[in-house]
Amino acid sequence: MSRRRTATRNPARVATVDPPDPGARVALPHLDKGLPLDGGGVSAAGANVLREDLPLPVCTLRDAALRANSRALLDFLGAVGRATGADVVLAPHGKTTMSPELFHRQLDDGCFGITLATARQVRVARHFGVARVLLANELVGRREIDWVLGELRRDPAFAFTCLVDSVAGVRRLAERAAAVPAGRPLDVLVEAGYAGGRCGVRTLAEGLEVARAVGDAAPLLRLAGVEGYEGLLQTSPPEGRDEAAAAVVRSVADLAHALDADGLLDDADPVLLSAGGSSFYDLAARILAEPALRRPTRIVVRSGCYLTHDAGLYEPLLRRLVARDPLARAEGLAFTPALEVWAHVLSVPEPGLMVLGAGRRDFGEDAGPPALVRHARDGAELATPWLGEAPIERVSDQHAMVALPEGAGLHVGDVVALSPSHPCTTFDKWRAIHVVDDATTVLETVRTWF
Amino acid sequence: MSRRRTATRNPARVATVDPPDPGARVALPHLDKGLPLDGGGVSAAGANVLREDLPLPVCTLRDAALRANSRALLDFLGAVGRATGADVVLAPHGKTTMSPELFHRQLDDGCFGITLATARQVRVARHFGVARVLLANELVGRREIDWVLGELRRDPAFAFTCLVDSVAGVRRLAERAAAVPAGRPLDVLVEAGYAGGRCGVRTLAEGLEVARAVGDAAPLLRLAGVEGYEGLLQTSPPEGRDEAAAAVVRSVADLAHALDADGLLDDADPVLLSAGGSSFYDLAARILAEPALRRPTRIVVRSGCYLTHDAGLYEPLLRRLVARDPLARAEGLAFTPALEVWAHVLSVPEPGLMVLGAGRRDFGEDAGPPALVRHARDGAELATPWLGEAPIERVSDQHAMVALPEGAGLHVGDVVALSPSHPCTTFDKWRAIHVVDDATTVLETVRTWF
Repeated sequence: MSRRRTATRNPARVATVDPPDPGARVALPHLDKGLPLDGGGVSAAGANVLREDLPLPVCTLRDAALRANSRALLDFLGAVGRATGADVVLAPHGKTTMSPELFHRQLDDGCFGITLATARQVRVARHFGVARVLLANELVGRREIDWVLGELRRDPAFAFTCLVDSVAGVRRLAERAAAVPAGRPLDVLVEAGYAGGRCGVRTLAEGLEVARAVGDAAPLLRLAGVEGYEGLLQTSPPEGRDEAAAAVVRSVADLAHALDADGLLDDADPVLLSAGGSSFYDLAARILAEPALRRPTRIVVRSGCYLTHDAGLYEPLLRRLVARDPLARAEGLAFTPALEVWAHVLSVPEPGLMVLGAGRRDFGEDAGPPALVRHARDGAELATPWLGEAPIERVSDQHAMVALPEGAGLHVGDVVALSPSHPCTTFDKWRAIHVVDDATTVLETVRTWF
Repeated sequence: MSRRRTATRNPARVATVDPPDPGARVALPHLDKGLPLDGGGVSAAGANVLREDLPLPVCTLRDAALRANSRALLDFLGAVGRATGADVVLAPHGKTTMSPELFHRQLDDGCFGITLATARQVRVARHFGVARVLLANELVGRREIDWVLGELRRDPAFAFTCLVDSVAGVRRLAERAAAVPAGRPLDVLVEAGYAGGRCGVRTLAEGLEVARAVGDAAPLLRLAGVEGYEGLLQTSPPEGRDEAAAAVVRSVADLAHALDADGLLDDADPVLLSAGGSSFYDLAARILAEPALRRPTRIVVRSGCYLTHDAGLYEPLLRRLVARDPLARAEGLAFTPALEVWAHVLSVPEPGLMVLGAGRRDFGEDAGPPALVRHARDGAELATPWLGEAPIERVSDQHAMVALPEGAGLHVGDVVALSPSHPCTTFDKWRAIHVVDDATTVLETVRTWF
């Protein structure tokens, strides 16, 4: 059940489903960072990064890792579904990559839909043929609401759900739905939050009040289920972290129970229960499988980072997940870091210091700086044992300063690969990213739309 | 002298000077963040942000502030030039905005050229008609060097200078210049660095050695002057900061003196002396005006951030500059923050907390989070006295969590403007930025090429 194909997945990669709109395209030069300087084309297929066929810095994704990671999470969730008897599906968070080509890889592999964070992200996904979208956020702008309603009217195959956490927010949606009829209900999930967290109702009573406001707005709105987001807790201290995340997911289940008991979920088909960022999807799937509601349920987990993984932020979180979940251990759940940023050694100006030609414009730092993982010279990768002991100690916009072990140093013009921690804040530094094979030869160039 | 026009500035905004190249353009949909969701066009001229004509988040630049800031720095440098008798010019760092439309505003206002950080940034500037480029960085990649050499050969009007800080780097340039003849010398500046800094030679002896290597590579290479970058010191403790920055600039002057005395600058015409990020251009201009070399000199300062300024990182640094420089006081040197990011209030889920629909994907945080500076509801700006006391306390990729004073709170769906600290890391979150008038109506939509 969990490996279902989306009914409307697109056979063509990155097909455009927009209506004909001659004004909707703009001719731009091929100047994106990471593309050949000679402007020869938007794709760099066949170029080899080690051979320096492309200007640096450049960002790559290892194809083998993408494929294995995509399979690994879907297989694990399938196993959880079989073990619990629940309908567990994956709607990966698309804000991680904002790459339509990667969305379609995920959908082709069996994902249920794509999760997104803003109306404009939904617009991008729609343009590139994504049929089922969970907007894991409140939708409050009038312009944004109107666009979603128009899209629901235009395309009967568009499945869309967003979140509500206030009566005021529900009323805004209902007001626009009355003014710009979609011809069918706008589906919403009540968001269950927690004190000190982000959005979401803080109590069962608030949740019931918001749900009743949705009911009052029928048939313009329809209550489709309950959502929560425990993912922010991944950076809280390890002591009690799993319990706190479990409590957030449990509040989703509790609210669903309360709404179900009040008959407020009677129009949901099935009831969607959603939680689960990239660190706690095991807890989300298992806890949300527990409530016995009067109507069928579907559990939607939303990890965005499994596809690329990383050795900084997510590998320790994955190890923790595997340690607590027997099925993850039995399935041998594992991911491989797929994302790398390549840079030249610009200078080795003093003992103990090396300057690289990539900086905070090229990789994220919010979860720590990237690690040096590869070293190449004259087109060949070299084994350089001290790389792992050479941390990036300072970063400026276009440079990274690496602290070197005593006596170590590379040559000016050598090439190094950096492995970022937290993919989200590295993806958004690039408009063109190269999917590469094991020899670091470009197979496909994917675009991002941040 | 300092207000000179570049000889080759382009009469047309963002003119393309590339040779005809039918493969060099790609038709992309109008899906960039901040553009209308209906795909109606790449420009949003006439749209009003307060009226929510555009989807949020959106990024704006105040036209009046851009114009005043641009004038203010050029006027100040002109005054320094007159006072010292030196030829002081501004080649603003283009990496801040990476917006060709803004580059041309700067050139039209009298800037000498554009400073850039990578070969690919130079490629963007060249495509959009920038004639004079200072690459304030080492150029070490073979592919990148070859592209620059080809561009020098193709366009006799292209004026290009880059940095060298090692004999190895000089040899790489010379090797490529021998293989890919440009038909004229490749101009380089020796970079003077400092212990614990970034690139750059650490001693006079090293500087002389690198300069001699350049001389040995004549006529392929030509030594055009000396460069240093004191800007990283702007975040060091205030005690002794100005003195440390002055010492870095003085090392540039000292190295220039030594090279001049050795006859190594005899081919430079004029000798370029460059320093001066966005905090110490006064020190740079004054100190670099001191050395009496045997040949005429031109002082190139490179501030990137004056055009947009900000109230977080740069206003205190400007106040310090004005306090130490009598001409800055006499001229009343002042800048106005131009850059704002607008977001909806998504949720006010508990007392003391408000959640905005913009996050680290929309503004920089490396110099502290943005400040709330404006509030609008139903198309009108409101005076909300506590805005300045409501800091952004936590940020996630697409959200900002604002701590509220007791009893304060906005309505769900209200609009707020955020004023970022450090423009560089906010510009790079946007591909389309709207230049607005005082009523926040869009005058022009500029693109960025990060």
